[in-house]
Amino acid sequence: MARKIIIDTDPGQDDAVAILLALGSPELEVLALVAVAGNVRVTQNAHNAMQILEVAGRPDVPVYIGCERPMRHPLITAEYVHGSSGLDGPTLPEPTTPFQTQHGVDYIIDTLMAHEPGTITLCCLGPLTNIGMAIVKAPQIVSRIKEIVLMGGGCFEGGNITPAAEFNIYVDPEAADLVFRSGVPITQVPLDVSHSMLTTKARVQRFHDMGNRVGTVTAEMLEFFERFDEQKYGWEGGPLHDPCVIAYLLKPELFKGRHINVAIETASELTRGMTVADYWGVTGRAKNVNYLRSGDSDGFYALLFERLARLP
Amino acid sequence: MARKIIIDTDPGQDDAVAILLALGSPELEVLALVAVAGNVRVTQNAHNAMQILEVAGRPDVPVYIGCERPMRHPLITAEYVHGSSGLDGPTLPEPTTPFQTQHGVDYIIDTLMAHEPGTITLCCLGPLTNIGMAIVKAPQIVSRIKEIVLMGGGCFEGGNITPAAEFNIYVDPEAADLVFRSGVPITQVPLDVSHSMLTTKARVQRFHDMGNRVGTVTAEMLEFFERFDEQKYGWEGGPLHDPCVIAYLLKPELFKGRHINVAIETASELTRGMTVADYWGVTGRAKNVNYLRSGDSDGFYALLFERLARLP
Amino acid sequence: MARKIIIDTDPGQDDAVAILLALGSPELEVLALVAVAGNVRVTQNAHNAMQILEVAGRPDVPVYIGCERPMRHPLITAEYVHGSSGLDGPTLPEPTTPFQTQHGVDYIIDTLMAHEPGTITLCCLGPLTNIGMAIVKAPQIVSRIKEIVLMGGGCFEGGNITPAAEFNIYVDPEAADLVFRSGVPITQVPLDVSHSMLTTKARVQRFHDMGNRVGTVTAEMLEFFERFDEQKYGWEGGPLHDPCVIAYLLKPELFKGRHINVAIETASELTRGMTVADYWGVTGRAKNVNYLRSGDSDGFYALLFERLARLP
Amino acid sequence: MARKIIIDTDPGQDDAVAILLALGSPELEVLALVAVAGNVRVTQNAHNAMQILEVAGRPDVPVYIGCERPMRHPLITAEYVHGSSGLDGPTLPEPTTPFQTQHGVDYIIDTLMAHEPGTITLCCLGPLTNIGMAIVKAPQIVSRIKEIVLMGGGCFEGGNITPAAEFNIYVDPEAADLVFRSGVPITQVPLDVSHSMLTTKARVQRFHDMGNRVGTVTAEMLEFFERFDEQKYGWEGGPLHDPCVIAYLLKPELFKGRHINVAIETASELTRGMTVADYWGVTGRAKNVNYLRSGDSDGFYALLFERLARLP
Repeated sequence: MARKIIIDTDPGQDDAVAILLALGSPELEVLALVAVAGNVRVTQNAHNAMQILEVAGRPDVPVYIGCERPMRHPLITAEYVHGSSGLDGPTLPEPTTPFQTQHGVDYIIDTLMAHEPGTITLCCLGPLTNIGMAIVKAPQIVSRIKEIVLMGGGCFEGGNITPAAEFNIYVDPEAADLVFRSGVPITQVPLDVSHSMLTTKARVQRFHDMGNRVGTVTAEMLEFFERFDEQKYGWEGGPLHDPCVIAYLLKPELFKGRHINVAIETASELTRGMTVADYWGVTGRAKNVNYLRSGDSDGFYALLFERLARLP
Repeated sequence: MARKIIIDTDPGQDDAVAILLALGSPELEVLALVAVAGNVRVTQNAHNAMQILEVAGRPDVPVYIGCERPMRHPLITAEYVHGSSGLDGPTLPEPTTPFQTQHGVDYIIDTLMAHEPGTITLCCLGPLTNIGMAIVKAPQIVSRIKEIVLMGGGCFEGGNITPAAEFNIYVDPEAADLVFRSGVPITQVPLDVSHSMLTTKARVQRFHDMGNRVGTVTAEMLEFFERFDEQKYGWEGGPLHDPCVIAYLLKPELFKGRHINVAIETASELTRGMTVADYWGVTGRAKNVNYLRSGDSDGFYALLFERLARLP
Repeated sequence: MARKIIIDTDPGQDDAVAILLALGSPELEVLALVAVAGNVRVTQNAHNAMQILEVAGRPDVPVYIGCERPMRHPLITAEYVHGSSGLDGPTLPEPTTPFQTQHGVDYIIDTLMAHEPGTITLCCLGPLTNIGMAIVKAPQIVSRIKEIVLMGGGCFEGGNITPAAEFNIYVDPEAADLVFRSGVPITQVPLDVSHSMLTTKARVQRFHDMGNRVGTVTAEMLEFFERFDEQKYGWEGGPLHDPCVIAYLLKPELFKGRHINVAIETASELTRGMTVADYWGVTGRAKNVNYLRSGDSDGFYALLFERLARLP
Repeated sequence: MARKIIIDTDPGQDDAVAILLALGSPELEVLALVAVAGNVRVTQNAHNAMQILEVAGRPDVPVYIGCERPMRHPLITAEYVHGSSGLDGPTLPEPTTPFQTQHGVDYIIDTLMAHEPGTITLCCLGPLTNIGMAIVKAPQIVSRIKEIVLMGGGCFEGGNITPAAEFNIYVDPEAADLVFRSGVPITQVPLDVSHSMLTTKARVQRFHDMGNRVGTVTAEMLEFFERFDEQKYGWEGGPLHDPCVIAYLLKPELFKGRHINVAIETASELTRGMTVADYWGVTGRAKNVNYLRSGDSDGFYALLFERLARLP
């Protein structure tokens, strides 16, 4: 039986590839996409999510709109990475179906309460606002979540939006703190992993050569997306952050990690949004996160190529 | 036409008197009571609210259950002030009607969106969790709230739960911060006011002597409630905090205040939940609060006696 | 035998009156004045101290220059209260003696170590930088200080430089924190006391009428000094903060207070420098301060008149 | 002409090797050692420093005792790394000369003021307390320091005492903050560098094989010292942190770095003492540090072998 997942997301070219990877994988049943404010504003993110579903030929997957602002601080967006639409690069089809009218936070709560406990996995590709809000509004959901697999934070690579913080956590550190303290089993895909999953020229070409619509769109998205990190770090490609979340669900053996304590910095402006990872076990704080530190990038891209090739 | 109010509350003996004062006043239309976690746990608070409505003969007023925990920190309660039920003192009738099933936060959002902008006043007698959550979940409500009149904070009297903080704000300072920064017109009833509204023996006797059920219940509640502050401060009675919120709506001329900036301390554990009131205008920060500093206690009690006498 | 005191000060008109009060009182032996950066820069403060000694006919009292900056944050000064010289108002004689060359911090350390333990009282009229530095540089002094009597902080009056903080503590809260946690017996004269010690017209006239040089200079200083608070608070005079420190040593019965815990806020920018006074004993933190809450202003001025009249 | 240096230190086996490296290098003139509280208490550190001078046959180098506690927080020590003496491992000769009586902070100030500006380099191998105190006590020294080369902090390796902080900075982050904001040219040797300078078996054997007293003592110190990190990280040796400071002065070409902004975290308990290194230039904060990121470990050990062989 396929594993039921809800993808909470702010697409984002790398979110888009993650969504495509999930849709191309029969092991996963994508119950819905829930948009959150992050890379761009929430309604644009929801629109982007629907465009990706159109590309994948899956407009039947419902899209919900979640929170338009973080729990505490004003929204910060990342058009400088993703372009003004959040999905710059390819020309994408317009959505043919409407958004769901229920609020994304309530969809998450209701779905968790309507299913058997331990059957729904939350895949979080953006700021954790929707999950944090759901935890405060309905704490009873906590014991019903099978697992949260999230992209965010980092340790040995530092941050990307500030020296200490990665974008997703930085945008809503209070929501992240609620999630990390919740007791829900968490697997964290940090920059330490995603920075090794680079879109080299050869890999992008491989998407081009797939011959299907999804391959072409993916290649065009990645060509846009990789520019930012190539310039910043002098790399030969961009890091495919979010697809690692889905890849971990499909093939956890591609990743190596450690069960450790991770705490979220919320008290200081200088380090706000840092995921303080006790990788060497020096603090005595309780372990709450399966922290992935490295991944097999060839295996990861092989999985991507294989699964995206199954889509239209 | 009566002014439409929603009372967000964690009753609490003084909350109860506030609710009774509103119900006894034809100038106000109580659309609903929304419970919030505070003095005791949220379901107990909702139960208490319904008991007060029974006493007042108004079980038709709907009661919603809001958040059971603050936005960021674990819940702190105040049974040491209000007793284990939150309403210790009188024997109260059991509720005859069920709770509303909609979540209190959603009721607030939907009601504000369903009414004309600027027609609904929120009377907040407990922690501001429900309002903070509503602002994050649906920021569009902010421009539709006529006014928030809240009991909380203090300046010249210090705090009550800590040297710097009053209980309502201390329980959920992040929610308070969202409210105080929201741009909604705010009138704040701080401890500076409520500490002058003492339940002297003569005043309690006056409630006993009213001859109606509400008078007796009120007297019995106040006799329990006043013990805490009498012991702590050596006063001759307890301070009737929350009814000042309703009294202000009915007779603003009973109170004196100043339009100033008030900021909420959330960064420091030592002063967490302090309402930092720029009473002397030294900061240059924008004015956001009508800060009441003193009140006419005889006029206030006269209003209470008159209105509670109208109830069963 | 006279009580040996060192006055650590940033004169300041009210500091000046405090110094004069000490010099006019045979119960006290003023070992030295130590200047600290505060109301104006430290060298100006030292110069001011020497001018006051000239006025009092006591150029034999040595003046040391202490720290020119706080322990952690850049210096903030208060020329807007005290005038550009820090002692605006009267025309003062130029000093006839040189400064001491030893650093003020070292003078404090060496003097404490050279005298019997428990024989030296520190009277602190400005930021606590010199004392904080001495405690870090030579922790062995802590057990040798008889008492620190300081002007700073406040509780029921709020702050003066910010809504939460009084100037002396705000300028160097980290030094204050070191002092308040040191274990040295502390008596704190807060704004709560000094705001009741107003320089009314009649009182200033009384200084004028004394007929001696010190009386005239004092009157002229107070006429300048009182302007700030008169404007800000609408009062009929200015508050004589610092002389309360000396008055407390001379006549403690003029003041009422309570032995409580006082903690210094250093973590938050909003409330930095607040003296968080647990006046009602709600925290369980250990008592470290004799916190004066009120004073007898007529008795205080009577003492001032009597003692300043003894000077030239 | 030899470069004049003052070594501020809390020896520590790796401090000891740094001192020996300096003493064995004619390019450097060691004016004095100043002890600071850190690995063990300050008097023990001073004693250790003198023992190392005895081993090196240089009891003529003066040793000063600096601060026995950090500027703000209580002292934390590291006997669990360095042993109860701070220099566990070899049997060391007892000192034959007395300590200097001047306080270490004053020695630093006086020496800087007595020499031509820009002629004295401070080599800081422990917490930065003495330098921070000197900056507050005598800010005029700032413009006279040629350079501060310090071991502390880290970025890509995380911390060692906590997940975010390295020991030297963690012990006195406020002092570090004063130093890093001072405007003095700073070269920082972080854990990122020192963790690549491991004491392998072969390298320790090489010290044993030198045939001189210093070689034997060094080998015995390193055999003790390496146990901690071998156990923690599973490495084949321990990291020689402090000698990198001296090696950088002797052969800067052994190290690669970048001129960047580094800020010290002091606001949050979770990340206190972190050196927040803006390695990718995302903050726009002014560059204040020559941040070394990697080093040539073979070249480094070759230098050590060559110079320590020159000593007795």
